[in-house]
Parts: sequence; C-alpha cells; structure tokens
Amino acid sequence: MISRYSLSPMKEIWTQEAQYERWLEVELALIKTYEELGIAPQNSYKNAKKNSKIDVEEILKIESEVRHDVIAFIKSVTENMNDEARYFHMGLTSSDVIDTALSLAMKQSLELIIDKLNEFIKVLKILAKKYKNTITLGRTHGIHAEPTSFGLKWLSYLSEAERNRERLEKTLEDISQGKLSGAVGNYANIDPSVEKKVLEKLSLMPCKISTQIVPRDIHAEFLYNLSLLGAGIERIALEIRHLQRSEVQEAFEPFTKGQRGSSAMPHKKNPIISERLCGMARLLRSNADAAAENIALWHERDISHSSIERIIIPDSCLIAFYMLEKVTWMVEGIDVKEDQMIEQFKRSYNLVFSQRVMLTLVSKGFSREDAYKLTQKVALECWNSKKDFKEEIKKVNDDEHYFSKNEIEDIFNPTYFLKNISKIYERFNFEDEE
Amino acid sequence: MISRYSLSPMKEIWTQEAQYERWLEVELALIKTYEELGIAPQNSYKNAKKNSKIDVEEILKIESEVRHDVIAFIKSVTENMNDEARYFHMGLTSSDVIDTALSLAMKQSLELIIDKLNEFIKVLKILAKKYKNTITLGRTHGIHAEPTSFGLKWLSYLSEAERNRERLEKTLEDISQGKLSGAVGNYANIDPSVEKKVLEKLSLMPCKISTQIVPRDIHAEFLYNLSLLGAGIERIALEIRHLQRSEVQEAFEPFTKGQRGSSAMPHKKNPIISERLCGMARLLRSNADAAAENIALWHERDISHSSIERIIIPDSCLIAFYMLEKVTWMVEGIDVKEDQMIEQFKRSYNLVFSQRVMLTLVSKGFSREDAYKLTQKVALECWNSKKDFKEEIKKVNDDEHYFSKNEIEDIFNPTYFLKNISKIYERFNFEDEE
Amino acid sequence: MISRYSLSPMKEIWTQEAQYERWLEVELALIKTYEELGIAPQNSYKNAKKNSKIDVEEILKIESEVRHDVIAFIKSVTENMNDEARYFHMGLTSSDVIDTALSLAMKQSLELIIDKLNEFIKVLKILAKKYKNTITLGRTHGIHAEPTSFGLKWLSYLSEAERNRERLEKTLEDISQGKLSGAVGNYANIDPSVEKKVLEKLSLMPCKISTQIVPRDIHAEFLYNLSLLGAGIERIALEIRHLQRSEVQEAFEPFTKGQRGSSAMPHKKNPIISERLCGMARLLRSNADAAAENIALWHERDISHSSIERIIIPDSCLIAFYMLEKVTWMVEGIDVKEDQMIEQFKRSYNLVFSQRVMLTLVSKGFSREDAYKLTQKVALECWNSKKDFKEEIKKVNDDEHYFSKNEIEDIFNPTYFLKNISKIYERFNFEDEE
Amino acid sequence: MISRYSLSPMKEIWTQEAQYERWLEVELALIKTYEELGIAPQNSYKNAKKNSKIDVEEILKIESEVRHDVIAFIKSVTENMNDEARYFHMGLTSSDVIDTALSLAMKQSLELIIDKLNEFIKVLKILAKKYKNTITLGRTHGIHAEPTSFGLKWLSYLSEAERNRERLEKTLEDISQGKLSGAVGNYANIDPSVEKKVLEKLSLMPCKISTQIVPRDIHAEFLYNLSLLGAGIERIALEIRHLQRSEVQEAFEPFTKGQRGSSAMPHKKNPIISERLCGMARLLRSNADAAAENIALWHERDISHSSIERIIIPDSCLIAFYMLEKVTWMVEGIDVKEDQMIEQFKRSYNLVFSQRVMLTLVSKGFSREDAYKLTQKVALECWNSKKDFKEEIKKVNDDEHYFSKNEIEDIFNPTYFLKNISKIYERFNFEDEE
Repeated sequence: MISRYSLSPMKEIWTQEAQYERWLEVELALIKTYEELGIAPQNSYKNAKKNSKIDVEEILKIESEVRHDVIAFIKSVTENMNDEARYFHMGLTSSDVIDTALSLAMKQSLELIIDKLNEFIKVLKILAKKYKNTITLGRTHGIHAEPTSFGLKWLSYLSEAERNRERLEKTLEDISQGKLSGAVGNYANIDPSVEKKVLEKLSLMPCKISTQIVPRDIHAEFLYNLSLLGAGIERIALEIRHLQRSEVQEAFEPFTKGQRGSSAMPHKKNPIISERLCGMARLLRSNADAAAENIALWHERDISHSSIERIIIPDSCLIAFYMLEKVTWMVEGIDVKEDQMIEQFKRSYNLVFSQRVMLTLVSKGFSREDAYKLTQKVALECWNSKKDFKEEIKKVNDDEHYFSKNEIEDIFNPTYFLKNISKIYERFNFEDEE
Repeated sequence: MISRYSLSPMKEIWTQEAQYERWLEVELALIKTYEELGIAPQNSYKNAKKNSKIDVEEILKIESEVRHDVIAFIKSVTENMNDEARYFHMGLTSSDVIDTALSLAMKQSLELIIDKLNEFIKVLKILAKKYKNTITLGRTHGIHAEPTSFGLKWLSYLSEAERNRERLEKTLEDISQGKLSGAVGNYANIDPSVEKKVLEKLSLMPCKISTQIVPRDIHAEFLYNLSLLGAGIERIALEIRHLQRSEVQEAFEPFTKGQRGSSAMPHKKNPIISERLCGMARLLRSNADAAAENIALWHERDISHSSIERIIIPDSCLIAFYMLEKVTWMVEGIDVKEDQMIEQFKRSYNLVFSQRVMLTLVSKGFSREDAYKLTQKVALECWNSKKDFKEEIKKVNDDEHYFSKNEIEDIFNPTYFLKNISKIYERFNFEDEE
Repeated sequence: MISRYSLSPMKEIWTQEAQYERWLEVELALIKTYEELGIAPQNSYKNAKKNSKIDVEEILKIESEVRHDVIAFIKSVTENMNDEARYFHMGLTSSDVIDTALSLAMKQSLELIIDKLNEFIKVLKILAKKYKNTITLGRTHGIHAEPTSFGLKWLSYLSEAERNRERLEKTLEDISQGKLSGAVGNYANIDPSVEKKVLEKLSLMPCKISTQIVPRDIHAEFLYNLSLLGAGIERIALEIRHLQRSEVQEAFEPFTKGQRGSSAMPHKKNPIISERLCGMARLLRSNADAAAENIALWHERDISHSSIERIIIPDSCLIAFYMLEKVTWMVEGIDVKEDQMIEQFKRSYNLVFSQRVMLTLVSKGFSREDAYKLTQKVALECWNSKKDFKEEIKKVNDDEHYFSKNEIEDIFNPTYFLKNISKIYERFNFEDEE
Repeated sequence: MISRYSLSPMKEIWTQEAQYERWLEVELALIKTYEELGIAPQNSYKNAKKNSKIDVEEILKIESEVRHDVIAFIKSVTENMNDEARYFHMGLTSSDVIDTALSLAMKQSLELIIDKLNEFIKVLKILAKKYKNTITLGRTHGIHAEPTSFGLKWLSYLSEAERNRERLEKTLEDISQGKLSGAVGNYANIDPSVEKKVLEKLSLMPCKISTQIVPRDIHAEFLYNLSLLGAGIERIALEIRHLQRSEVQEAFEPFTKGQRGSSAMPHKKNPIISERLCGMARLLRSNADAAAENIALWHERDISHSSIERIIIPDSCLIAFYMLEKVTWMVEGIDVKEDQMIEQFKRSYNLVFSQRVMLTLVSKGFSREDAYKLTQKVALECWNSKKDFKEEIKKVNDDEHYFSKNEIEDIFNPTYFLKNISKIYERFNFEDEE
C-alpha cells in the first residue's frame, strides 16, 4: 500500500520486520513448548529468546541466495544461538510458521479494525440520536418521496455497521486458527498436542484439519467481510456526496482549517473525503474477488495464493482501517444544514404532501375518485407552473370549503411522518454507550 | 437471460434451435467443401441439406442418454440422410463444430450490437448539435464549477461511443475466427486447406493456431469490450439520474403515455430506465471478469469454460443489446429543461462568476491581491447569507466604481465560457450522418 | 438461467408464477392481520384468498401498459374480489411486497441449498471414514511430498463444507427479514405492529430498520456465501480432475452407463462434471462481486440493484443447487483406485522416504551431516538415473551395514505417516449421521 | 506494490519523485509554449527550468497543510523562481497537469512492458522452432488425447502473445492522450492551440474531448489489456506446473544454482515461479475489474477514481512487468525432458493409437462396425489389465493376420500426427527475429 493511505498502528503490523517478529514468536512458542514437555532442556526458551536477532537486511540477502524465505530467516535469526538452536523450528515445515504467523497478523489487524468500528458506531449513535426529530426529505430514485427523519439515515448506517461488526467478530474467531501439522497436514513429524500448546501461547486455535496450510476459504471470508464493511462506508460517503451537491446543500463534510476548494469561489467545497472513500470501496471489492480464486488449490496445497496474498491482505487491512478513520472523522464533524432541509420541500413545490391532501378529503367523506381528481388537478398545475402546492390548495380552499385553516397546517406539517419513528429507535440499544 | 430483457432479433440468435442450426451450417459447409474437392460425390451437399432436419426435443432426448451433445445432434440430424451421411462430420472433432459455431453466434451478435450502436451514435450527434449553445452548469465533485455547453456532454458521450465502436469493430475481426484443426489442433485428420474453404463459406478466418478450441483470450476480449460499452452507457444513465433529481430537474427520461410514477404526486417521475441501465452495467462487468478466468485452460483444453460460457456469453450479448435499445430510446426522447439550467445558477448564488469578477478587476489594473480580497469578501457574504452574488456586486459597484453596467452584464454572461467550444466540435465529423 | 442447469425443486421457486404467488402470500397475510386487528371485517381473508387469482399472461399484459409491475399485479389479482379488495395492499408501498417476497424466495432457496449441503456432508463423512487408512501421496506444488491418508482429503472437504454450512445457516437467519415500513422506511402509513404480525405469518422477522427496501449488504452476504460454497466445491472438483489425469489415475468420476468419452479409446474418460463445476464456481464468484456493487444506493433507495438482482440472485441459487446435486452424485460414485495410489510412489522412485532414511541414520548415531551426505548421494543417483530408492538403499546396505532388513521395511512403510491421523478424526463428529 | 515485486526500471516510473518530475515536465512545456507564442517573455522556459526544484519532503509537508497536492507542488517548485513564475501553471486547472502526467506515466510503463513482451516473443519463437518436431502427448480434459508436437504449445503461446502485443500497441496509442482543457473541458481559460503545442512537446495527442479529466474508459482499457496479458502468462505458467508434476516430469522450471526445494528429496523441485505467476494474474484481473467501476463518474468528473487509481495503475504496471521478466527467464531456461514425453505414452498403454488401428482396418476393407468391435475388444482388455496396446495388437496379429509388421510400426508411429504442422508454422514469421 502507498504510504499516503497507510496509517499507524495498522501499518506497523504489515512491515517486513513485523512479519519476521511474528515468525520468531511462533518459533519461540515452539521451543517453550518443547521445554515444558521435557523435550528441550531447561532455559532453552530463555536462551533462544535472548540469542535471537532479527536483521531484515541480512535475511533478505540470504533469501536472494537460497531462494527460500524461511530457510533464510532461520539461518539469520539463529546465528547467535547455542545449543537451543537444535530445537528451533524442530519438526516444523515452513508453512507451519508462515501460515500461523499470517493468522496472527490478520487477527491483530482485525482487532484494530473492530476497535475503530466500535468508535465509528459510537459516533453513528450520537448522530442518530441528535437528528431523531430533524425533518428531511426522504428520496427514492433521487426523487422527493416523503418527509422523514434525518436521524433515521444514521440509524440505518448504525444498523449496517452493527451487522458488519457481527460479521467481523465471527471472522475474528474464524481467522484465529493456526496450524503446526506438517508438510501435508498429517502430523507425521509433530504431535497434535504440541500444536495445541504452541497455539495456545499465541492465543490461536488449531485448525480442525489443515493441509500444508490453513484453508483459504477463511482468508476469502476475511476479505469478503472487509469488502462488505467498505460498501457500508461507501453508502454513507455516497449519501454525503449527494447531500453536499450544490443543489442540495443539506450536509457538508468537515472542511479543515486552511483547506481551500477554490480561491475565489467559497461554494467550492468538494466532498473529497467521501469521494476518496467511494473509490476505496472498489478496491476492497476487487481484492475480495481475487481472494476467492485462492480457495481451490492443488492437492495438499499449491503456492499460487501466496504472491497475491502478500499484496491484497495487507492492502485491504490498511484501506479498511484508513476508511474507518476517515469516515469517523467525517461523520463526527459533519456540518448539517437543518434549515436547508426544510427549504428543500419547495424544490418540488410541497407536492410531497399531495397524498395527505387526498387522504384527508377521503376521510371527510369524498369518494376516492373525487378526492383524487381534485388533488391531481391542483398538483399538476403546481408542477407545470412551478407554483407552491400549499398556496394553491389554500386558494382553492379560500372559503375553507374543504379544510379548516388548522387542518391545512396539519396536512402540510411534515412531523406527521415521524409519528412512528420512536418505535424504530426503541429497537436499538443506546444505553451502553453512555 | 430472463425474457424481460431478451429482445429480438438478439434473442433469436441464442435459442437452442439457432445453435443447432449453426452447427448444421458448419457441417454442411464441410460437405460442400468435400464435394468441391472431389472427396464427396456430386450432390452430396444438396442432398445433405435437403435431408437434414433439426428436432430440438429429439436431440435433447438423445443427449440425455449418450451425454454428448454433438453425438446426439449428429444422430438426430442425419436420420433421414442417405449416402451423404458418410461425409457428415467426417474428419471433425466436436469442438471444431461447437467452437466455430460459437464464433458465428458471437459475430452475428456483435454485428447487431454495432448496428444498434451506430443508431445510438446518430442520436448522440443530434443532441450534441442541438444543445451546442445551451448554457448549463459544469459540475465537478457534484459542485457547481463553471458554465459550459450542455452539448459538450453529448459530444463527450459521442466520443466515448465512437471509441467503443472502434473497440468492437476490432473485436468483430478478432472473433471472426473458426477452427477445424481436430482434437488437439494439429490437423491430424483434416487438412488446413479444408478448414480454410469451410470457414470461407461461413465468412470466418481460420485461427492462426488453435488447440482443441479457439483461444479464450478472444472471448475475454469480447466480454471486456462489451463491459466497456456498458460502462459508457452507465455514464450517460448516471448523468440523467443526476439531472432528473428533484433538486436539479434539468432533464428527464421520456415518460411513456399511461406510465405513472405516483398517483397523486406528479413530480414523482422516477428515472427507472437509467437506474436499470446502471444495474445492467454491473452485470457486463462481472461477466467480463469471469471470462478472464477462462483463458488459462489445461494443456490442449479443459472444458471448465464451457458451463459458464453458456450463460455469460448470451447474457452479455442480450444485456448489451437491451441497454443500447433503451439508452437510444431514452436519449432520443429526453426532456430537456433549458430554463431550469439557467435557474440553477442561483443555487450557488451566481458565485460561479466570482473568478471572472476577480480577473476583470486585475485586467483593470488592480493587484491580484486586492482583486482577490475584494471579490472574496463579497463572495463569502453571499455564500453565508444566501444572497445573489451579481446583486451584491452591483451594490458594491452602485456608483459604477469598478465596472460599467455593460461590464457587469458581460461578466455575468455565461456565454463567455462557450467561446472555444466550436473548436471542439470541429474535431468531429457531423457530415456523414446527414 | 438456462434450462440445462435448472433443477427442481429450485427452479420452481424462481418462475414468474411463483413470484406472483409470493406477492399474493404477502398481501393475504396483510388482510389476515387487518382482520385480526378488527380493521378489516370478518372473512376478509377467507374471501380474498378465495377470490384472488394469478394469471401470469394477464399481469404481464397490464404491466406493458402501466409500466409498473405491482400495480399490474394488484389490478389482475383482485379482479374477482368484492369488498375485501379495499384491504388488499392497503397502506403498503410496492417495495414492501416485492422485497418481503424476495426474502421469502431467498429463504426457500437457501433452505433447499442447506438440505442438499447436508446430504453432501453425509457423503463426505462416508468417504472420510472409508478411506481413513488408505495410503496415498500427499502433494504440494504438484510434487510428491509425503505419504498421507486419502481419507484426510475428504475430511478436509468435510470440514470446509461444515464451515460453509455454518456460514449459510447464519445467512439464512440474516435473510429471513422482511419489511412493511412504507416508501421511505418511516412507517408513516402503517404501524410497526402490523408489519410484525404480517411477517410472523410468513416466518420472517422485521428488519431492525429499513429504507424503502431491505438493506442490500444482506443480499451481498447471501451471494458472497454462495460463492464460498461454490469455491469449496471447486476445490473438490479440481482434485478429482487432477486424480483422474492419465498420468495419475487414482480416482475417477462415475461414468454413466452408456456414456462414452471416445468410441475407440477406453481411457478417454473425461472428468466433465468436475470441469463443469469448476466453471460454475467462477459464475458464483462474479455474481457475488456484482452484488457488492448494489449496497451503496442513493438516499432511501435507488432501483439500480433491481435489474441485475433479477438475474444474479436466481442464477446463483440455481447454480449452487445444481453444483451440490452434481458434486454429491460425483463423490458418491467416485471410483477410487487404491492400488494405483501405491503404484504412484514409483513415479518419484520412492524418494519420498529419503527423509526417513536420513532421520533413522541420525537416530542410530550418525551425525546429521554424515547422514545427510549419505542419503543425498543415493537419492541423487536415483533421481538422475530413474532408479528405485528403496532398491538402491538395499544395495548400499547389502551387508546390513546400516539397517536391519526389518528396519528397511519399516522405513519404507508409508503407514508410518498415518500414525497421528486418528487424532484428527476424533475432532469430528461421526456419530450423528448413523 | 511491495518491493519484492518492484523491478527497475518500472519502479522508478512510479516513485513520488518521478510523479512530480512529470508534473514539472508538463508545466515547463506550457511555459515554453507561452514563450513561443510571445505570451511569456524570452528565456522564461530556460529560467523556469533552471530555477525549478523538486523537494518531495517539502511538497508533502505543504500538502498536509493545504490539502491540495498540486497547490503544494506549485508552491514548492516555484519557490526559487523569479518573474517566470507568473507563467507557471497559468490558465491550467490541476487536473490538466495531473491527468496529462498520468498519461505520460502510463505511456512510459506500457513502452517498457511492450519492450519486455517483445523479448518474450523472441524466446517463444526460439522454443517453437526448437521443439517443432518433438513428439508429445496432446491432452484434453487432462486425459491423453492424440500425439502432437511440443513446439505447437509454444507456437500457441506465441500467437497469444502477439495478440496481446497488438492489443497493447493499440492501447499505447489510446493512452497517449493528454488534456489542457480546463476545469470542465470547455477551454474557457486556455486555447486549444496551446494544448496542442504543449502536448506535442510531450509526445501526446489532445483528447478529442475531455471533461475535467481524460475519459476513464481509456484507463479501464489499459488495465483490461494488462489483465489479458497476465492471463496469457498464466496459461503458460499453468502448463509448466502441469508438466512438472511428479507424475508427468516432462518439463521443469529452471532451478537456480543453490536453490533447494528440499534437503534430502531431490525430486522436490517446486514450480514456484509458475505458481507465483498464476497468483499474480488474479491481481491483474481484479484490478481491471475495479478500473471498470471508474468510468461512470458524476457530471464533468468526480474524484472517486483517484484513490484507487493511485494503487491499481502502478501495481498492475509493476506486476505485469515482473511477470514478463519472470516468464521470459523461466521459458528461456526451461528444462525439457523429451524422453519422458515418449515414456508418457505408456501411462495410457499406447491406447492413443487405437483410433489409427481401427481406421487402418477400415482402409483394408473391414466394415466400420467390425473394425470398431475388434479394436474396442483389445483396447478394453488393455485398459482393464494395464497391458500395452501395441503388444496386444501384435499378439492378436501374430500371424500378420491383419497387418504387416511394417504397418504396425507405422500405426504406432506418433510422427504421423505431425504431418500437417509445417503448414501451421508457415503462418508465422520467423524471419524478422534473426
């Protein structure tokens, strides 16, 4: 991933050095296990830990000769070891180390992502509560539909974010699996009990069954669920982009101090963060698609998945983390224009209330047919001549022929449409966050 | 493909019957060739043609027994033949027939698509010319940017459509390849000269080299270029969806007589065709992605590509054809609101002219710094208080302190921004269509 | 989906008629609810049920005029109704019906898929048990690696199938959500309690919050998990294709009576089902990829997802079902050649035992260096001269210099590599299936 | 892209510094143009060039404040300029610089890729010629089919590589387009003649029409065609993986001196480069899929494409270049085992000749029915009892009942199958490379 989108602490997980450290962590857990089992002599672990060293440059140099990353690693890292070196990597196959360490990295990454997601969820709850009673126009097909609560949008994003959290928590469990089952997964040179002990030390579970590697549907699930997380963020970002349009202006991304869209045109505040997030969702999607091609490997494993995983797994972790960071910042600082939301009703001449006019007429005894005809006539006139529907209804009604003045105000009162939303809010738990 | 999106004459290409007819076409071209070469006796072709029959039900019934589609086909189609049956399929392998016939189907489909695309290009030219001098707001990031010509949008779509036509014409050549090179592509049982003569009759070229089948990068290229065509249509559809938004209302999809978005709300005209087209572009994209997995087959062929090709190739042809049909209809009948485009400038308080105010001040001798400060002060006031920038500039200027009245009108005249567009139009050929 | 790959009872779920029946099911559940709540008079439900009719042709004819599928449906289906028609669709928006009915269809489909998957899992268990002690060569990178148990392959597929079942069961819950929350999801014209009662009758839960529609991350999750299921089947199919290679011949797809790969060449049994399944996995993948583009819709919904969902959702259900049917059949009838598996060791000259030779030498007191040199010398000679490693070791050893005769037999006994596999089997539950 | 897969000189194109240098190149071409047109005073270009500096750290530091990359760039790069700074960026919008420079980078990258591809094509020609008469088994479905020439495989890859070269050469033309048409593509602040002159200096053409940016179907075409290139390499890599299988051993990737697959097992040469290339093809595919989502942008541009393009465009260039480097190396050093190819016929008991036996019987006057029965009987016996078909035919024939001895040798001579391959080779031009 380019440095522009690599944020701490996620980026520290995916350095070359951190990878070697995780390999070492696995190897040391093995020596500790051997010591506990009486296979390695006392202090083997202590000495191995003390005498191991990670020298990235050196390892890469050796690798360029032997063309095998784990052999290069072992050679370099054990250089200063004494007898304890005998137990280093003993009974393991390279993939035992690599794949277990990859699970560790994915687990750590996912924990960071879930933490960030929890922060984001808190912010979404705040917005959902804050705008519960804020009237805005609901739009379907991009067309004004019915008044609704601005808070419901945030409640909807909250609900999706909670679904994504649930998916990722499930995935966190699934990815917390390592394997020390040998070259073809049959434990020919290592006992399952050793695997269990080693993985316990790493807070991982053993795969119920592995080949040379951890099965790749698990990694695909991981990237699929990051893709869903990204699409959930994209949905919010797309909404902001729409609300910030020059013709809408109902909400704006926070504008950093010193930032300028255009020198002379103050309206030129571009929703660049939201746009950036939309682009990034595409990457999470396509990386996930690629990961699904890595599942069907040959026999007890082929290594075709490896080259692409070196790219897409870190990249998707980094991008997902970046997206959460930015969307949280953006939503937290969002500049909402409640007046403008009301103003917006005029763009469709208050015609969003036409159905209520008609239904009120019906409730007053008009036949549906007559009510419809009357309403439709006025509505069409407003649409064609760009006149305000409320004003035209008042004109038609000027002797209170159909409605009392109060009734008119009531009909055109958008809060009517919020009457049931508390029942939606009650389905969510707002307590725990306070 | 579901019948809802299957239009004639494209759908007739992809029936089971049409497939068998193409197989027969290949087989008859072979007999004719054998007759020409003196291998088959005179009248073999005539008799084979006369005595062949296609009975879809019967073929499928036989296939369910023998589990081989070409064997079933041959058995049924030659049932009423006499001696000429000896030369039917002689020297061929099943894939010679299937793959050559598939090329025929793709070629026919692509010809239909290019025809439709040509019609569409004509309509785009008409719109580009018609709206050449129609002022509209150019928008970047969804934010008002600079006035521009509404015709330029159509010229841009035209240009993309022409690029897609060029791509598809290249692909038409590439797909016009068949093969009669036998089971592994070595012509062990058939001479290359026979292949050449047969394919000539079918207006196809021989593959320079084939395996058991025509190489699949060609089919992937086909679907990739249909995907680009779809994305070009998506771009237009997305524009219409934006222009039809309740807050924009600058252009509308045609509304069929009798169609109703909503019974009482006449503003509820939903851009459903444009939305449908956007969804369909996603299918063309994902089908193309799948096709690229079909290229790397095992050795002289494995048949894993076949099951998915039976679905994605017809589906992408049908959808591309449907999209062209609909987008042409939509663009042809588009309801453009030129007044509304001018009205739109007010949504950003005519601030799109602020740069011209500043530059005019500079041209009058103001330092850039002073010009900027003056303009920015007024502009910010307008933005914050929702005042019209032109009116505020007039106020500041009320003694013609900075500008003459004519100058003000000139500054706020959006046609300034169209001064160079003829030079763009000149790059396109509008002659040939008239 | 083409009829070739559409199997009962899945295909009956996705007919046009079945869709209208589900719509009617939703509408009738509403009338019943109204009746229960005293809103509609007694017997409304009974009469509505009795007087409703579904006439697909008529509905489609009306739709072609009014260009609205639900309006056409209502008009046709209520034609013979009396007063109860007043309560038909009352308070609903079209998407309440469409999206709730879509959830029903996806739920029914997923139930069928899970049933099939359960059958498949049973078959996998049988194979895993049957071949527990069957020696075969484990291969990594396509190269002989270490002896292993043929049963472990099936246990590995079983484990993946169980993970996929778990995913799909979770998805079944997630997809069992409907919505009757109106045009923008705010229940302006219907009470949440009505939604609850109606959905209960349909065995669905209400969405915690909906827009005009059920949120689309749920549908993407559905297709993502079908894609993982497909990739799991692809993994098995790919294995069969490898095992059936002419050079391997360790296992064969069942060959139907009467089926012929080639008339004269009996070895020409092609693994066509496996190949077909591999192709189909690509479709599930690309459909899933497309579904993820449907999540970020505009505001309270745009309808761009609809066109593509009409295709990819039924297609993925049909293909997943087909794949399960075929893979179960294939695995159930698999023709395993245990002798050939042993024969295979000769292809790499029994060199897979070289490590055991070396380790045995070490255990006898040889330095690792010396043991390595000795083994390596013989091994290289075998590799270069295509000699059998066991025989060459015997020669080197002819005076029992290094090993006793029994030791040699022991070293070259592949069952050694199975010593720990019972511990893997113990992790699985084989009881419940008997 | 990770450094592991970033090779010179491609990686130098995609550094941050190189990007700024290309931006400067565009800006300087503008000043030169202004000077030529008499708009800027003499020596403006010379001075601007002399006084410009690129300080990556400084630019990034400024960007972190102003949040606009081009503004930061201009500020830093012009710091030491005098009057000539007035003409720097004059009349341009940021995207004029960014997008034109991106085209330059893609053009340079594609030129490198085409150069590498030409080298690869030379190597493919060498192999095609070298193995023209090498007998090998053609395989379909992974099953032995018919003898063929090993050279035909390479000729087939050559042909695909040539198609990919043709596609990339077309794309090179298409991508060689820049734009200096201003904020919405209407040349309001710059004349098309200036654009033309500037782009000429950069060896680019002006877009026929642009919005704020170069249209994105061109970038998608670029990535689509890199994806096809990748799939072509994947096809070769997949073949090598198959040929190197322990059961096949017909060809091997070059094994670097010092490289070891396994310490004791010399047969453990893993085709790791080929496997790596297969994985990388997946990345090119998914990046291309993502690029196609970037085409339909809002109005005169939205910037959602930018974040993802910063990743996928360099990554796909780097990976494509890496793949070509490696596949060329691999193919050049391939270790072909011609003897083993002949040996292979025994794996299917020489049954690949059964059809020739049957056809020879027919040519000798046997009815097709009788010939078939006889052949089939022997063939089945061989298949079931693992006997050699040639030997069994000899037995049946022991009194030369059916064939003379010479005829038998002729029937079982695989060179028969190569009789027409010269005609395929003649379609290719081998002259120009020598």
